[in-house]
Amino acid sequence: MDKVRVIEIKKSVFENNDKDADALRSELRQKGVFLLNLMSSPGSGKTTTLIQTINALKKELNIAVMEADIDSDVDAIKIKEATGVQSIQLHTGGMCHLDAEMTRQGLDGLDLNSVDLVILENVGNLVCPAEFDTGSSKNCMILSVPEGHDKPLKYPLMFSVCDLVLINKMDVAPYFDFDLKKCEEYVKLRNPNAKVIPICAKTGEGIDKFAEWLKYNILQWKKEGK
Amino acid sequence: MDKVRVIEIKKSVFENNDKDADALRSELRQKGVFLLNLMSSPGSGKTTTLIQTINALKKELNIAVMEADIDSDVDAIKIKEATGVQSIQLHTGGMCHLDAEMTRQGLDGLDLNSVDLVILENVGNLVCPAEFDTGSSKNCMILSVPEGHDKPLKYPLMFSVCDLVLINKMDVAPYFDFDLKKCEEYVKLRNPNAKVIPICAKTGEGIDKFAEWLKYNILQWKKEGK
Repeated sequence: MDKVRVIEIKKSVFENNDKDADALRSELRQKGVFLLNLMSSPGSGKTTTLIQTINALKKELNIAVMEADIDSDVDAIKIKEATGVQSIQLHTGGMCHLDAEMTRQGLDGLDLNSVDLVILENVGNLVCPAEFDTGSSKNCMILSVPEGHDKPLKYPLMFSVCDLVLINKMDVAPYFDFDLKKCEEYVKLRNPNAKVIPICAKTGEGIDKFAEWLKYNILQWKKEGK
Repeated sequence: MDKVRVIEIKKSVFENNDKDADALRSELRQKGVFLLNLMSSPGSGKTTTLIQTINALKKELNIAVMEADIDSDVDAIKIKEATGVQSIQLHTGGMCHLDAEMTRQGLDGLDLNSVDLVILENVGNLVCPAEFDTGSSKNCMILSVPEGHDKPLKYPLMFSVCDLVLINKMDVAPYFDFDLKKCEEYVKLRNPNAKVIPICAKTGEGIDKFAEWLKYNILQWKKEGK
């Protein structure tokens, strides 16, 4: 099994995370690196979605991945084995989220030379990661069908900070009382600008749409920087 | 629709939560109230499991429920309508967990006269709630099949503080790569004393075993107090 680099993240000393996140965003802009912050509950399919999406995009974009987890390095190894892209594991040491300084510690462990896109797979948690700006260019979250269409009502902040909501595990929709229309309504209630894309990471359904969204947003971001 | 009482929980002022939790545990012991702290990811089926279990036990035990949520009071209403037992909603105001003092604020909103069992449905989160002793007599968590059998490896603390792990949504096991044996092994790795019960809250499968576990543990707890 391939070994991956594991970085033990230290607690931040910065008191003003918003300021620090803006500073990190500027640094990344200067380097031409688009940072996507990917959030979700545990087990919603973040890693599988990433593998499919990276394989769809890696010929066009130079991608690197940071896998944040409280413990274990299975995800970073999985990503590396399945896609071949640069992948590191961030251990949060029990912490339930990443902030900008912690994200910077992770970025320092990557070779960002000629990298277009860094994807941060945040800790599996629908609450705390939403409260901390990581310095990302865009925020994306995954809600999976088995979790239920009512989640935007219960975790309002997470849905309001995300530019894109992927609805994963659409293949099992027939076995759950999941109402996609209602879910989309609830998402819009929290965030009228959020885009919703139904996907199935297992079968690959909708991954092309997510890849298109990423390419379009990276292009727009590059235009804004000029 | 029945209205339920909603309590806006304030941030704790206690610095030593462990000490405060022990004090609350003693108070509850004196009152003869067994407190079960129920934790899980968002959407794992806590509320449905509670409804089935309360309906199986309410003739033998006087039960009250505290439903903690960042926002919304749908769960407390659901519990009240489906079971008729005393049910209140705790709003955590964005906070990702409950500690002992916050739990006490909730208990103050209940009429504990002749209540045998209070069930606290904690905020949906596999990380933070595990770090804060609520003063509960026992901790229980739900892991649902769609979340995957690897979760004890990724959220070690949650599995190590729980006396009981319910594996929910067993009815959809054929549609997911969920290995129950492996899951049980991983749970035991984190906590050799934890009991694992597979259930399906939707069909009622295994709810009798959870009800038996509760009755047995309340009885043992009462014996210890004598």
